[in-house]
Amino acid sequence: MPSPTLDAMQLHDLSTPAALVDTQRMQRNIERMQSRMNTLGVAFRPHVKTTKCLEIAQMQIDAGARGITVSTLKEAEQFFAAGVTDILYAVGMAAPKLKQAAALRAKGCALKIIADSAESARAIVQFSKEHQQSFEVWIEVDTDGHRSGVKPDSDDLITIGRLLHEGGATLGGVMTHAGASYDLHTPQALQAMAEQERSLCVLAAQRLRAAGLPCPVVSVGSTPTALSATQLEGVTEVRAGVYVFFDLVMANVGVCTLQDVALSVLTTVIGHQADKGWAIVDAGWMAMSRDRGTQKQTHDYGYGQICDLAGQPIEGYILSAANQEHGILSREGDAPDPAIAQRFPIGTALRVLPNHACATGAQFPEYHALTAGQIGPAWSRFYGW
Amino acid sequence: MPSPTLDAMQLHDLSTPAALVDTQRMQRNIERMQSRMNTLGVAFRPHVKTTKCLEIAQMQIDAGARGITVSTLKEAEQFFAAGVTDILYAVGMAAPKLKQAAALRAKGCALKIIADSAESARAIVQFSKEHQQSFEVWIEVDTDGHRSGVKPDSDDLITIGRLLHEGGATLGGVMTHAGASYDLHTPQALQAMAEQERSLCVLAAQRLRAAGLPCPVVSVGSTPTALSATQLEGVTEVRAGVYVFFDLVMANVGVCTLQDVALSVLTTVIGHQADKGWAIVDAGWMAMSRDRGTQKQTHDYGYGQICDLAGQPIEGYILSAANQEHGILSREGDAPDPAIAQRFPIGTALRVLPNHACATGAQFPEYHALTAGQIGPAWSRFYGW
Repeated sequence: MPSPTLDAMQLHDLSTPAALVDTQRMQRNIERMQSRMNTLGVAFRPHVKTTKCLEIAQMQIDAGARGITVSTLKEAEQFFAAGVTDILYAVGMAAPKLKQAAALRAKGCALKIIADSAESARAIVQFSKEHQQSFEVWIEVDTDGHRSGVKPDSDDLITIGRLLHEGGATLGGVMTHAGASYDLHTPQALQAMAEQERSLCVLAAQRLRAAGLPCPVVSVGSTPTALSATQLEGVTEVRAGVYVFFDLVMANVGVCTLQDVALSVLTTVIGHQADKGWAIVDAGWMAMSRDRGTQKQTHDYGYGQICDLAGQPIEGYILSAANQEHGILSREGDAPDPAIAQRFPIGTALRVLPNHACATGAQFPEYHALTAGQIGPAWSRFYGW
Repeated sequence: MPSPTLDAMQLHDLSTPAALVDTQRMQRNIERMQSRMNTLGVAFRPHVKTTKCLEIAQMQIDAGARGITVSTLKEAEQFFAAGVTDILYAVGMAAPKLKQAAALRAKGCALKIIADSAESARAIVQFSKEHQQSFEVWIEVDTDGHRSGVKPDSDDLITIGRLLHEGGATLGGVMTHAGASYDLHTPQALQAMAEQERSLCVLAAQRLRAAGLPCPVVSVGSTPTALSATQLEGVTEVRAGVYVFFDLVMANVGVCTLQDVALSVLTTVIGHQADKGWAIVDAGWMAMSRDRGTQKQTHDYGYGQICDLAGQPIEGYILSAANQEHGILSREGDAPDPAIAQRFPIGTALRVLPNHACATGAQFPEYHALTAGQIGPAWSRFYGW
């Protein structure tokens, strides 16, 4: 039986910095999202770019997820090799990547690709004809002016649909990502954004169908909108990624608390500048990433929230600055802690909650699973393209 | 004979995003630094954290470097396994890492570690006694208030020196890093900082020697100060890292031009938001890193300077924003380019110069060497701890 007490000696044996995953928090996050989706009556397709880890994706699938979303074709290849076949590559397809996508389809991967312009649709159709390779294509819809996608009320939407359908592609549906939801922080605004994402994506689907085109799938999602939507009429599936770990950005958005954040960086105090109120730790930006996502939010956590070895936040102490392999731990605000060296002596092990779990996770070759205070297996994650 | 014309077809065959190293620019950067150090009469010890790549470190050694500097013990292990024995681990040593450092020493690695507090010195001495393992220790000196190190005029300096020397350690010297030089951008200010770094580090050495302690090495360095120092009397060696690639931050500091930047990210245009003047490319922050080092400098390049496939900057076009796998290419300033889709059609291959080469390089498993327009071997780099 694992002891519920943290095994500090075991944690001290890890080389720092190290990425820890609190598996109980993660499992709770997975169940929270899946049960919401079940209640809302939609399928759930997690975005695995957050973790790039087979073990974690398997837990999401075991909880009820149907298929996965990826951000690179390398992720698609890795997860397909591990047995996942239903994969959405959710980045606009450009001609140079079609060969790699076709190779996956030829091996039996039910890969779906996306297009958001006539130019892209034409390239897909042309490649298909030249290589006798049919693709399933979803049309990306812009529902929040955030980044990419075709406007749901535009003529372009129908043009793209016709190009694909008449060109021999399987027109699988429409998809959108309300990334602008990350800039919000009230339940009212989040609910409104979720409804905007839903209604505009459904509008796109309705227009395609009214034009006589197939549109079986209506796929929406971002962690904030997925956790805020009150109804998803007309939607068939939801996608979300960062909810599996959560992070300080999501805590500021208001869709989790610090007690939900499942990813932390284990670090060691290596020095002090006591007159400045600084402790120097061995988690710099190489470990935390350069992500400063909380900088413009209601609570700026610098490069991360300092926690004790058990993962409990030490209120008022953050990683206020970072060099490559040095982090500066200090009190928030303008009053330095004169007793910083006594509070955090050299050799002290601490944990740091990240601003952005996708960016921090990407700095590490592996996660150390932490369950009820016990270090379990190391789970590798891949990177690159 | 390699052709001097860029082989665009070859570059198009690479999966994007990809990290390209212009080997001619890099070789020129290596020779520039080494020849400066030869002229100034000091040894040069490159910091290999920038590249974490055996092939590149070997070129630095072949050009005349003596020993290397590392930022993690993993780097020390990897480079020692590849035959480099003279290694400075330039991050303050804390007790939990001594075992790993001792294992390297026991295998024959001439590893030097650093201490900047009596607490750290005591931990080293105690470990040495308990494990019959002697260390060579350098004392880190703070010459610019930037981060870590003991003040050169402090009593602590002598206390640490005595603790180490009398405790059986080999007191190898003093070292400092004027990281504050990154905040400067005039030759006068850089020369003054280089002189401050030199004089204060020499002062520390003189005080140790006056106290009857050995101090053979006086090691200083940062790329900006190394390239700005006019004399290095009393200094025995210089360290620098990012000069091997250079980057946009260094161009703003004024120690290189855009024509010297040897690292770039190959990317593909995957879409547009023409009404906003955006082209969407497949280099997001996962490729560029989240480093926004030019944000507070004289020229803010967003997430990078756009170049054509030959590596020539396309003036006025930057990567203005980044999501995980999407970058937004736009014109600098407030006037969007209405012809962005015609200028950069879908499928266009471009290169992006990074803000910070150390951070961008770290996002890639390998570099593609590009020599006179021909893609050469892929050089792997390692990551993690």
